[in-house]
Amino acid sequence: MGTLTGITDGPADNEDWDLATPFLECLVRLIRAQDTHGAWEGKSDADLLADFILTKEQRREIPIIGDPDPDVLWRLQNFYSCVGLVIEERTGLLASPIMTISHEGFGRALFTTGRLVVLWKTLRDVHRFGFETLGKLSESGTKMVEDAIAVIETYPDMARA
Amino acid sequence: MGTLTGITDGPADNEDWDLATPFLECLVRLIRAQDTHGAWEGKSDADLLADFILTKEQRREIPIIGDPDPDVLWRLQNFYSCVGLVIEERTGLLASPIMTISHEGFGRALFTTGRLVVLWKTLRDVHRFGFETLGKLSESGTKMVEDAIAVIETYPDMARA
Repeated sequence: MGTLTGITDGPADNEDWDLATPFLECLVRLIRAQDTHGAWEGKSDADLLADFILTKEQRREIPIIGDPDPDVLWRLQNFYSCVGLVIEERTGLLASPIMTISHEGFGRALFTTGRLVVLWKTLRDVHRFGFETLGKLSESGTKMVEDAIAVIETYPDMARA
Repeated sequence: MGTLTGITDGPADNEDWDLATPFLECLVRLIRAQDTHGAWEGKSDADLLADFILTKEQRREIPIIGDPDPDVLWRLQNFYSCVGLVIEERTGLLASPIMTISHEGFGRALFTTGRLVVLWKTLRDVHRFGFETLGKLSESGTKMVEDAIAVIETYPDMARA
Protein backbone atom coordinates (compact mmCIF):
# COMPACT_ATOMS: atom_id res chain seq x y z
CA MET A 1 0.00 0.00 0.00
CA GLY A 2 0.99 3.59 -0.26
CA THR A 3 2.76 3.62 -3.61
CA LEU A 4 0.12 5.65 -5.43
CA THR A 5 1.11 9.29 -5.51
CA GLY A 6 -1.08 11.97 -4.12
CA ILE A 7 -3.87 9.94 -2.62
CA THR A 8 -2.32 8.43 0.46
CA ASP A 9 -1.06 11.71 1.89
CA GLY A 10 -4.05 12.15 4.11
CA PRO A 11 -7.78 12.28 4.40
CA ALA A 12 -7.79 15.84 3.11
CA ASP A 13 -7.15 14.59 -0.43
CA ASN A 14 -9.94 12.10 -0.47
CA GLU A 15 -12.31 10.50 1.98
CA ASP A 16 -10.60 7.14 1.37
CA TRP A 17 -6.99 6.91 2.40
CA ASP A 18 -6.07 3.29 1.86
CA LEU A 19 -6.29 3.29 -1.86
CA ALA A 20 -3.18 1.74 -3.29
CA THR A 21 -5.04 -1.45 -4.10
CA PRO A 22 -3.80 -3.67 -6.90
CA PHE A 23 -6.88 -2.69 -8.89
CA LEU A 24 -6.28 1.07 -8.68
CA GLU A 25 -2.57 0.64 -9.29
CA CYS A 26 -3.36 -1.32 -12.43
CA LEU A 27 -5.88 1.28 -13.57
CA VAL A 28 -3.32 4.05 -13.15
CA ARG A 29 -0.73 2.05 -15.10
CA LEU A 30 -3.26 1.43 -17.85
CA ILE A 31 -4.11 5.11 -18.11
CA ARG A 32 -0.48 6.22 -18.04
CA ALA A 33 0.34 3.70 -20.78
CA GLN A 34 -1.95 5.71 -23.04
CA ASP A 35 -0.23 8.98 -22.30
CA THR A 36 1.91 8.75 -25.41
CA HIS A 37 2.76 12.46 -25.47
CA GLY A 38 3.49 12.87 -21.78
CA ALA A 39 0.60 15.27 -21.30
CA TRP A 40 -0.29 13.77 -17.93
CA GLU A 41 3.24 13.45 -16.55
CA GLY A 42 2.66 16.29 -14.13
CA LYS A 43 -0.57 14.77 -12.89
CA SER A 44 -0.73 12.73 -9.70
CA ASP A 45 -2.36 9.32 -9.72
CA ALA A 46 -5.25 10.79 -7.79
CA ASP A 47 -5.77 13.41 -10.48
CA LEU A 48 -5.85 10.71 -13.15
CA LEU A 49 -8.48 8.77 -11.25
CA ALA A 50 -10.51 11.83 -10.27
CA ASP A 51 -12.63 11.68 -13.42
CA PHE A 52 -13.96 8.29 -12.35
CA ILE A 53 -15.56 9.91 -9.32
CA LEU A 54 -19.07 11.31 -9.49
CA THR A 55 -21.11 12.40 -6.52
CA LYS A 56 -24.79 11.49 -6.49
CA GLU A 57 -25.63 15.07 -7.40
CA GLN A 58 -23.18 15.07 -10.32
CA ARG A 59 -24.63 11.80 -11.59
CA ARG A 60 -28.13 13.15 -11.50
CA GLU A 61 -27.13 16.21 -13.51
CA ILE A 62 -25.80 14.17 -16.44
CA PRO A 63 -28.51 13.78 -19.08
CA ILE A 64 -29.06 10.26 -20.35
CA ILE A 65 -30.33 11.57 -23.66
CA GLY A 66 -28.00 11.56 -26.63
CA ASP A 67 -24.86 9.54 -27.16
CA PRO A 68 -22.69 8.86 -24.11
CA ASP A 69 -19.72 11.18 -23.86
CA PRO A 70 -16.60 9.73 -25.55
CA ASP A 71 -14.60 10.38 -22.37
CA VAL A 72 -17.08 8.31 -20.37
CA LEU A 73 -16.78 5.49 -22.88
CA TRP A 74 -13.01 5.73 -22.65
CA ARG A 75 -13.16 5.42 -18.85
CA LEU A 76 -15.61 2.55 -19.05
CA GLN A 77 -13.32 0.76 -21.50
CA ASN A 78 -10.33 1.31 -19.21
CA PHE A 79 -12.24 0.12 -16.16
CA TYR A 80 -13.19 -3.17 -17.82
CA SER A 81 -9.78 -3.60 -19.44
CA CYS A 82 -8.31 -3.20 -15.98
CA VAL A 83 -10.61 -5.91 -14.59
CA GLY A 84 -9.29 -8.19 -17.34
CA LEU A 85 -5.66 -7.27 -16.63
CA VAL A 86 -5.93 -7.92 -12.90
CA ILE A 87 -7.59 -11.29 -13.58
CA GLU A 88 -4.63 -12.06 -15.80
CA GLU A 89 -2.10 -10.90 -13.16
CA ARG A 90 -3.72 -13.12 -10.55
CA THR A 91 -4.40 -16.26 -12.62
CA GLY A 92 -1.98 -16.13 -15.52
CA LEU A 93 -4.98 -16.57 -17.83
CA LEU A 94 -5.89 -14.00 -20.44
CA ALA A 95 -9.41 -12.75 -19.76
CA SER A 96 -10.55 -11.03 -22.93
CA PRO A 97 -13.25 -8.45 -22.41
CA ILE A 98 -15.79 -7.88 -25.15
CA MET A 99 -18.22 -4.99 -24.82
CA THR A 100 -21.18 -3.66 -26.70
CA ILE A 101 -22.84 -0.36 -25.88
CA SER A 102 -25.81 1.06 -27.72
CA HIS A 103 -26.00 4.79 -28.23
CA GLU A 104 -28.76 4.73 -25.63
CA GLY A 105 -26.20 3.76 -23.00
CA PHE A 106 -27.15 0.11 -22.59
CA GLY A 107 -24.89 -2.79 -23.23
CA ARG A 108 -23.05 -5.85 -22.05
CA ALA A 109 -19.53 -6.61 -20.97
CA LEU A 110 -18.39 -10.19 -21.13
CA PHE A 111 -15.10 -11.80 -20.09
CA THR A 112 -14.01 -15.19 -21.35
CA THR A 113 -10.95 -17.36 -20.82
CA GLY A 114 -10.63 -20.45 -22.98
CA ARG A 115 -14.11 -21.94 -23.25
CA LEU A 116 -15.26 -20.36 -19.99
CA VAL A 117 -17.46 -17.32 -19.50
CA VAL A 118 -15.93 -15.91 -16.34
CA LEU A 119 -17.93 -12.74 -15.92
CA TRP A 120 -20.67 -10.75 -17.54
CA LYS A 121 -22.21 -7.45 -16.71
CA THR A 122 -25.24 -5.70 -18.03
CA LEU A 123 -24.37 -2.05 -18.58
CA ARG A 124 -26.98 0.58 -17.91
CA ASP A 125 -26.92 4.36 -17.82
CA VAL A 126 -23.45 4.33 -19.27
CA HIS A 127 -23.74 8.12 -19.59
CA ARG A 128 -23.41 8.29 -15.81
CA PHE A 129 -20.59 5.79 -15.35
CA GLY A 130 -18.68 6.73 -12.22
CA PHE A 131 -18.20 5.94 -8.56
CA GLU A 132 -18.88 7.94 -5.43
CA THR A 133 -15.38 7.49 -4.07
CA LEU A 134 -12.07 6.01 -5.12
CA GLY A 135 -12.71 3.34 -2.50
CA LYS A 136 -15.91 2.34 -4.26
CA LEU A 137 -14.19 2.33 -7.64
CA SER A 138 -11.56 -0.02 -6.22
CA GLU A 139 -14.13 -2.19 -4.44
CA SER A 140 -16.27 -2.55 -7.53
CA GLY A 141 -13.37 -3.56 -9.77
CA THR A 142 -11.84 -5.85 -7.16
CA LYS A 143 -15.17 -7.60 -6.59
CA MET A 144 -15.46 -8.37 -10.31
CA VAL A 145 -11.93 -9.76 -10.28
CA GLU A 146 -12.70 -11.93 -7.23
CA ASP A 147 -15.92 -13.22 -8.77
CA ALA A 148 -14.11 -14.08 -11.99
CA ILE A 149 -11.32 -15.88 -10.15
CA ALA A 150 -13.87 -17.90 -8.16
CA VAL A 151 -15.43 -19.05 -11.44
CA ILE A 152 -12.01 -19.93 -12.89
CA GLU A 153 -11.21 -21.95 -9.75
CA THR A 154 -14.53 -23.77 -10.03
CA TYR A 155 -13.93 -24.72 -13.67
CA PRO A 156 -10.15 -24.79 -14.09
CA ASP A 157 -10.17 -27.10 -17.11
CA MET A 158 -12.67 -25.07 -19.05
CA ALA A 159 -10.68 -21.92 -18.42
CA ARG A 160 -7.74 -23.60 -20.13
CA ALA A 161 -9.77 -25.38 -22.86
CA MET B 1 -36.62 -28.54 -49.06
CA GLY B 2 -38.29 -26.35 -51.61
CA THR B 3 -40.31 -24.04 -49.41
CA LEU B 4 -38.26 -20.95 -50.11
CA THR B 5 -39.88 -18.91 -52.84
CA GLY B 6 -38.08 -18.02 -56.00
CA ILE B 7 -34.84 -19.87 -55.59
CA THR B 8 -35.77 -23.46 -56.18
CA ASP B 9 -37.44 -22.85 -59.53
CA GLY B 10 -34.38 -23.76 -61.49
CA PRO B 11 -30.72 -23.24 -62.05
CA ALA B 12 -31.44 -20.11 -64.06
CA ASP B 13 -32.16 -18.17 -60.85
CA ASN B 14 -29.01 -19.18 -59.13
CA GLU B 15 -26.22 -21.63 -59.56
CA ASP B 16 -27.37 -23.45 -56.40
CA TRP B 17 -30.78 -25.03 -56.53
CA ASP B 18 -31.06 -26.94 -53.31
CA LEU B 19 -31.21 -23.97 -51.03
CA ALA B 20 -34.10 -24.33 -48.66
CA THR B 21 -31.78 -25.25 -45.83
CA PRO B 22 -32.84 -24.60 -42.25
CA PHE B 23 -30.20 -21.88 -42.09
CA LEU B 24 -31.45 -19.94 -45.11
CA GLU B 25 -35.07 -20.39 -44.06
CA CYS B 26 -34.24 -18.94 -40.67
CA LEU B 27 -32.37 -16.04 -42.26
CA VAL B 28 -35.34 -15.23 -44.46
CA ARG B 29 -37.69 -15.35 -41.46
CA LEU B 30 -35.38 -13.08 -39.52
CA ILE B 31 -35.23 -10.55 -42.33
CA ARG B 32 -38.99 -10.64 -42.92
CA ALA B 33 -39.60 -10.13 -39.20
CA GLN B 34 -37.94 -6.74 -39.59
CA ASP B 35 -40.16 -5.71 -42.47
CA THR B 36 -42.53 -3.80 -40.21
CA HIS B 37 -44.02 -1.74 -43.00
CA GLY B 38 -44.47 -4.53 -45.50
CA ALA B 39 -42.05 -2.95 -47.95
CA TRP B 40 -40.58 -6.32 -48.91
CA GLU B 41 -43.83 -8.26 -49.19
CA GLY B 42 -43.54 -8.36 -52.95
CA LYS B 43 -39.98 -9.63 -52.81
CA SER B 44 -39.13 -13.30 -53.16
CA ASP B 45 -36.92 -15.00 -50.62
CA ALA B 46 -34.17 -15.09 -53.23
CA ASP B 47 -34.42 -11.32 -53.66
CA LEU B 48 -34.09 -10.82 -49.93
CA LEU B 49 -30.98 -12.95 -49.80
CA ALA B 50 -29.47 -11.54 -52.98
CA ASP B 51 -27.67 -8.75 -51.12
CA PHE B 52 -25.64 -11.35 -49.22
CA ILE B 53 -24.09 -12.47 -52.49
CA LEU B 54 -20.94 -10.86 -53.81
CA THR B 55 -18.83 -12.15 -56.63
CA LYS B 56 -15.07 -12.02 -56.27
CA GLU B 57 -15.00 -9.04 -58.62
CA GLN B 58 -17.66 -7.20 -56.62
CA ARG B 59 -15.77 -7.86 -53.39
CA ARG B 60 -12.59 -6.47 -54.81
CA GLU B 61 -14.32 -3.29 -55.92
CA ILE B 62 -15.54 -2.43 -52.41
CA PRO B 63 -13.07 -0.07 -50.75
CA ILE B 64 -12.02 -1.04 -47.23
CA ILE B 65 -11.33 2.57 -46.37
CA GLY B 66 -13.89 4.47 -44.32
CA ASP B 67 -16.64 3.10 -42.12
CA PRO B 68 -18.33 -0.11 -43.25
CA ASP B 69 -21.66 0.49 -44.98
CA PRO B 70 -24.60 0.38 -42.52
CA ASP B 71 -26.37 -2.11 -44.80
CA VAL B 72 -23.37 -4.44 -44.61
CA LEU B 73 -23.36 -4.18 -40.83
CA TRP B 74 -27.09 -4.94 -40.82
CA ARG B 75 -26.51 -8.06 -42.92
CA LEU B 76 -23.60 -9.14 -40.76
CA GLN B 77 -25.74 -8.72 -37.65
CA ASN B 78 -28.55 -10.74 -39.23
CA PHE B 79 -26.17 -13.48 -40.32
CA TYR B 80 -24.79 -13.94 -36.81
CA SER B 81 -28.21 -13.56 -35.17
CA CYS B 82 -29.38 -16.32 -37.48
CA VAL B 83 -26.51 -18.58 -36.39
CA GLY B 84 -27.63 -18.00 -32.80
CA LEU B 85 -31.27 -18.71 -33.64
CA VAL B 86 -30.53 -21.97 -35.43
CA ILE B 87 -28.35 -23.11 -32.52
CA GLU B 88 -31.33 -22.38 -30.27
CA GLU B 89 -33.75 -24.25 -32.57
CA ARG B 90 -31.50 -27.28 -32.57
CA THR B 91 -30.45 -27.40 -28.90
CA GLY B 92 -33.12 -25.48 -27.01
CA LEU B 93 -30.33 -23.37 -25.52
CA LEU B 94 -30.18 -19.64 -26.03
CA ALA B 95 -26.90 -18.77 -27.75
CA SER B 96 -26.40 -15.06 -27.26
CA PRO B 97 -24.19 -13.43 -29.85
CA ILE B 98 -22.09 -10.47 -28.86
CA MET B 99 -20.21 -8.58 -31.54
CA THR B 100 -17.76 -5.75 -31.71
CA ILE B 101 -16.66 -4.14 -34.94
CA SER B 102 -14.21 -1.30 -35.20
CA HIS B 103 -14.74 1.36 -37.84
CA GLU B 104 -11.78 -0.21 -39.62
CA GLY B 105 -13.85 -3.31 -40.24
CA PHE B 106 -12.21 -5.61 -37.72
CA GLY B 107 -13.94 -7.24 -34.83
CA ARG B 108 -15.06 -10.33 -32.97
CA ALA B 109 -18.27 -12.29 -32.75
CA LEU B 110 -18.74 -14.49 -29.71
CA PHE B 111 -21.54 -16.88 -28.79
CA THR B 112 -22.10 -18.09 -25.26
CA THR B 113 -24.65 -20.35 -23.60
CA GLY B 114 -24.57 -20.55 -19.82
CA ARG B 115 -20.92 -20.53 -18.81
CA LEU B 116 -19.78 -21.96 -22.15
CA VAL B 117 -18.15 -20.15 -25.04
CA VAL B 118 -19.61 -22.09 -27.94
CA LEU B 119 -18.20 -20.17 -30.86
CA TRP B 120 -16.03 -17.21 -31.68
CA LYS B 121 -15.06 -15.64 -34.92
CA THR B 122 -12.56 -12.99 -35.75
CA LEU B 123 -14.14 -10.58 -38.22
CA ARG B 124 -12.00 -9.07 -40.93
CA ASP B 125 -12.76 -6.92 -43.95
CA VAL B 126 -16.30 -6.45 -42.72
CA HIS B 127 -16.76 -3.91 -45.53
CA ARG B 128 -16.73 -6.83 -47.94
CA PHE B 129 -18.97 -9.21 -46.01
CA GLY B 130 -20.73 -11.47 -48.49
CA PHE B 131 -20.71 -14.90 -50.06
CA GLU B 132 -20.09 -16.06 -53.59
CA THR B 133 -23.32 -18.05 -53.78
CA LEU B 134 -26.38 -18.73 -51.67
CA GLY B 135 -25.01 -22.23 -51.23
CA LYS B 136 -21.86 -20.85 -49.67
CA LEU B 137 -23.86 -18.53 -47.44
CA SER B 138 -25.87 -21.50 -46.22
CA GLU B 139 -22.79 -23.70 -45.81
CA SER B 140 -20.91 -21.09 -43.85
CA GLY B 141 -23.79 -20.47 -41.42
CA THR B 142 -24.58 -24.16 -41.10
CA LYS B 143 -20.95 -25.00 -40.36
CA MET B 144 -20.88 -22.49 -37.50
CA VAL B 145 -24.08 -23.99 -36.12
CA GLU B 146 -22.63 -27.52 -36.34
CA ASP B 147 -19.39 -26.46 -34.67
CA ALA B 148 -21.31 -24.78 -31.86
CA ILE B 149 -23.52 -27.82 -31.33
CA ALA B 150 -20.47 -30.08 -31.18
CA VAL B 151 -19.04 -27.89 -28.42
CA ILE B 152 -22.35 -27.91 -26.53
CA GLU B 153 -22.48 -31.71 -26.78
CA THR B 154 -18.91 -31.95 -25.47
CA TYR B 155 -19.66 -29.77 -22.44
CA PRO B 156 -23.38 -30.17 -21.80
CA ASP B 157 -23.24 -29.16 -18.14
CA MET B 158 -21.34 -25.96 -18.78
CA ALA B 159 -23.83 -24.98 -21.47
CA ARG B 160 -26.55 -25.18 -18.82
CA ALA B 161 -24.51 -23.70 -15.94
